[in-house]
Amino acid sequence: QDASKLNLGVNKGSLQLASEDGNFKFGMGGRVYMDAAAYFDDKTDLGSGSEVRDIRLLMKADLWKKWNAKINIGFADGAVSLKDVWLMYKINKNSFVRAGHFLEPFGIEQTESSKTTKFMHAASTIEAFRPGRNLGFSYATWSKKIFWEAGLFGSDTNNKTEGDEGYGLTSRIAFAPVQTDGGLFHIGMSGIYRTANSTGFNDQGEENPKSIRYRSRAATHIEKRRFIDAKVANAESQCKLGFEMIAATGPISIQGEYISAKVNRKSNFEDYSAKGFYTQVGWLVKGGNYKYKMKSARLAKPGPGSVELLARYNQTDLNDSDALIMGGKQKDITVGGTWYVNHNILVKFHFTNVDLDENSLNGEENFNMIQTRLQFSF
Amino acid sequence: QDASKLNLGVNKGSLQLASEDGNFKFGMGGRVYMDAAAYFDDKTDLGSGSEVRDIRLLMKADLWKKWNAKINIGFADGAVSLKDVWLMYKINKNSFVRAGHFLEPFGIEQTESSKTTKFMHAASTIEAFRPGRNLGFSYATWSKKIFWEAGLFGSDTNNKTEGDEGYGLTSRIAFAPVQTDGGLFHIGMSGIYRTANSTGFNDQGEENPKSIRYRSRAATHIEKRRFIDAKVANAESQCKLGFEMIAATGPISIQGEYISAKVNRKSNFEDYSAKGFYTQVGWLVKGGNYKYKMKSARLAKPGPGSVELLARYNQTDLNDSDALIMGGKQKDITVGGTWYVNHNILVKFHFTNVDLDENSLNGEENFNMIQTRLQFSF
Amino acid sequence: QDASKLNLGVNKGSLQLASEDGNFKFGMGGRVYMDAAAYFDDKTDLGSGSEVRDIRLLMKADLWKKWNAKINIGFADGAVSLKDVWLMYKINKNSFVRAGHFLEPFGIEQTESSKTTKFMHAASTIEAFRPGRNLGFSYATWSKKIFWEAGLFGSDTNNKTEGDEGYGLTSRIAFAPVQTDGGLFHIGMSGIYRTANSTGFNDQGEENPKSIRYRSRAATHIEKRRFIDAKVANAESQCKLGFEMIAATGPISIQGEYISAKVNRKSNFEDYSAKGFYTQVGWLVKGGNYKYKMKSARLAKPGPGSVELLARYNQTDLNDSDALIMGGKQKDITVGGTWYVNHNILVKFHFTNVDLDENSLNGEENFNMIQTRLQFSF
Repeated sequence: QDASKLNLGVNKGSLQLASEDGNFKFGMGGRVYMDAAAYFDDKTDLGSGSEVRDIRLLMKADLWKKWNAKINIGFADGAVSLKDVWLMYKINKNSFVRAGHFLEPFGIEQTESSKTTKFMHAASTIEAFRPGRNLGFSYATWSKKIFWEAGLFGSDTNNKTEGDEGYGLTSRIAFAPVQTDGGLFHIGMSGIYRTANSTGFNDQGEENPKSIRYRSRAATHIEKRRFIDAKVANAESQCKLGFEMIAATGPISIQGEYISAKVNRKSNFEDYSAKGFYTQVGWLVKGGNYKYKMKSARLAKPGPGSVELLARYNQTDLNDSDALIMGGKQKDITVGGTWYVNHNILVKFHFTNVDLDENSLNGEENFNMIQTRLQFSF
Repeated sequence: QDASKLNLGVNKGSLQLASEDGNFKFGMGGRVYMDAAAYFDDKTDLGSGSEVRDIRLLMKADLWKKWNAKINIGFADGAVSLKDVWLMYKINKNSFVRAGHFLEPFGIEQTESSKTTKFMHAASTIEAFRPGRNLGFSYATWSKKIFWEAGLFGSDTNNKTEGDEGYGLTSRIAFAPVQTDGGLFHIGMSGIYRTANSTGFNDQGEENPKSIRYRSRAATHIEKRRFIDAKVANAESQCKLGFEMIAATGPISIQGEYISAKVNRKSNFEDYSAKGFYTQVGWLVKGGNYKYKMKSARLAKPGPGSVELLARYNQTDLNDSDALIMGGKQKDITVGGTWYVNHNILVKFHFTNVDLDENSLNGEENFNMIQTRLQFSF
Repeated sequence: QDASKLNLGVNKGSLQLASEDGNFKFGMGGRVYMDAAAYFDDKTDLGSGSEVRDIRLLMKADLWKKWNAKINIGFADGAVSLKDVWLMYKINKNSFVRAGHFLEPFGIEQTESSKTTKFMHAASTIEAFRPGRNLGFSYATWSKKIFWEAGLFGSDTNNKTEGDEGYGLTSRIAFAPVQTDGGLFHIGMSGIYRTANSTGFNDQGEENPKSIRYRSRAATHIEKRRFIDAKVANAESQCKLGFEMIAATGPISIQGEYISAKVNRKSNFEDYSAKGFYTQVGWLVKGGNYKYKMKSARLAKPGPGSVELLARYNQTDLNDSDALIMGGKQKDITVGGTWYVNHNILVKFHFTNVDLDENSLNGEENFNMIQTRLQFSF
């Protein structure tokens, strides 16, 4: 009946099956990141080693011209983890509504696939404050120079405690006035309001105090401990504000984000504030100039064969002496590079120095590491 | 060698790859149900929220004309769950044998895919008494008016306690004398005999007492607690009997099932009995008349574009005062509707009232809820 | 851009999508093993029953002519388990390098897919001493008569304890001077050096004593207990040496492996030694002569329609009286057969006698079992 003919093809190294009438498109594939890390310890005995950082199976379909469906499941660490699992309705060429489990629209790195983020590990500021993927729906629209997305989200799907889930309102707006081959300029702003999840009830049937937590690893994942960690008890809700900037001239790019977070607490408790930022610089030694994608409002992935040199400075401060919650402060510097072997394969190599203050996991310390990733996807 | 040419196509919104000689057919895809619920509490503080109710990846193949293979794996709640995983041998057009992990042939709703069941949540009677999927084999045959399936099943594959697994004999027979465009009539009967699973051994090496449990949620899944729950200790085996009926006249259908269960216990203990039934009515406001599938002996899924209004009354009684096991009694009424957007997408909306007796989880109470589902599959 | 045309085909019952220019090939599929076992107990009360022994989803791709990628994930026992997950670069027709999670090159049965191993359960010698799959990289090369592979491997990816992971150096070399249709002869040797994994740190921050463990089930998997089990505390590293042999004349084949393992312990502790071997005989009652694959240096899978009779004697000795570690000794004999129904389906049937010494789990005992498997893959 609807069995129109399908054509097979390869698109950027991935399988694609598209019907001649344009009604249907099917794709499937997977991705794997294989990492190794060597740590040069200070106080903490860090566990050098290797791991499969991410492994996924993906099936997706464009259905009846207007609908897109995606099922992407992660299997790292021997556990099932839902990634992009959503249904999208394309209103027109420049806008859509989407429902499902996906990344809340907040800033650049939070909304970007780990397949294309420049560094192996997200900036600790992003790791600490990002909302991640949650179950919800959003509306997105973009024109030649402006991108806007806003959504309403419940909690992550693995919430198993009794009582009502929290919810969040999230929005991102970006403005990219310069998008020429020689130069790019983009600024943006994001905001989140989110209520805390219920943490169940005590024996008297009263609701337990809720909490909100910000924490981050030390720019690495093989060593899994979080060195900065602020658990804010008696929390009611949180507000986050993010500012972002991208600029590029030819093969040189600079990107930065600043995020401030505030936890609103019960009346007798001082509100908690934290903040952080990163700045990163890229140089396409091989591979031409940086390009921009208005549809997602960020830099495009460099083409196959590119070689990119990278540097990042990141600082995250989870200390709030007014609220008497000292989660620690982390500064880290990474220099490294990426070889985009072809559409499917890339190799990363990083050197990182991490500096932690006296409020961190094991107190003040300063350590170095070398990390490398072999990544493939199809 | 056997590399006959394959043709690509789309069948009801799903990808299909079929060889020209008819020897092979391959398919793959997935499904996702995204649910939200708002509860209006009585005694129990119910947890409103949202969840990905089901998410699956599927691969299937028709091999060498006579064999069908299916691998369907669920990933909801961050856990792996085997669904249909079987190998079928087609004896002829109207009969097959099948081995693997699949739904035991017992009644209508137990044997139906959640993709097509009319309500978001199975009737509590079905949830309490259904055997679910188990590892076994069955034989099925059908003619123009009669369907029959019988099988032998071990336990579910996740049984990890020491000692022998239980096994079950299950059979369903259905008779559908009227199958015209204007009217349908179907009656059927199912039976199960199943021994209890071993629960391991005590320190003296003696077998622990076995138990059989019947329980059910409150017509919903986001709130996960079971409100009626009968755990029958010192159990040896169970027998269940099910009666089913379907009738339709034009765009109006009625379907009902009655199930009685009996647990045979050790000689000094009184046998335990429980029972339940549901009746549901459907009205295809848009989408023509109800249709019937003899191959599975139940109503067919309404076509794309259909709009269906629904009502269900369900009652499950797990109280047995003779056996002194009072598991609770639940009555619930649901009204709602389904919009079959196209072959791949549907939306459900339900209002449910649940009434629980004094033997239920938190005693006598009566609460309401609104639930909705966005479902896609390809 | 790279969207060259793809052709669809079926290769040995599996789907294959290959581009006309030879640059790309895509495949996907799955496998399922369904087992049942009946045990005839001696001292230990063994749990007869059934299980889905293995269930997998697979996606693979040949990319840009030179690269092969494979993602194979197991879902048995309701858990995620990484299987072959690797990226291979083909240096030429007779050599490759590979990085990822795959079987270390050690002996025959350790390096063979469970899809083609002759028995349902690996020989207990192999189960006890095999390194399994680990994250690492290897180089392999083969000529007309010689096969060689060597690799460096970290630990399995699920290592979650603090401290540095162990690593291993593994190599296999095989020589097959006779490879005619009437006769085959192959000998080989493998070696492993591997350091013990860290087991974390005590409260004083000192490293906990490491351990290495060898253990095995009783030639079966439905009954999950390990009857022989040697846990060597205060271990530093281990060395293993394997010797292998294959010979065939027409439809008769014989295959054997001998493995010795030595654990190097801290200075005050006696080193631990263990060893084992198996010999198995196959007779292709139907299906022609045995064939050999130089690329993997072992017997090829018998063709569709073949019927094979099998016998195996296996002995594993984990007792070391010098080191005062008595892990038990197991001898088992299996006779059985396999029917290779077609490329996708096979059936196995085994009778096994297991003999355990006084150092085994429940002391000296001797029991029998019947096991059967229905296996399909596509």
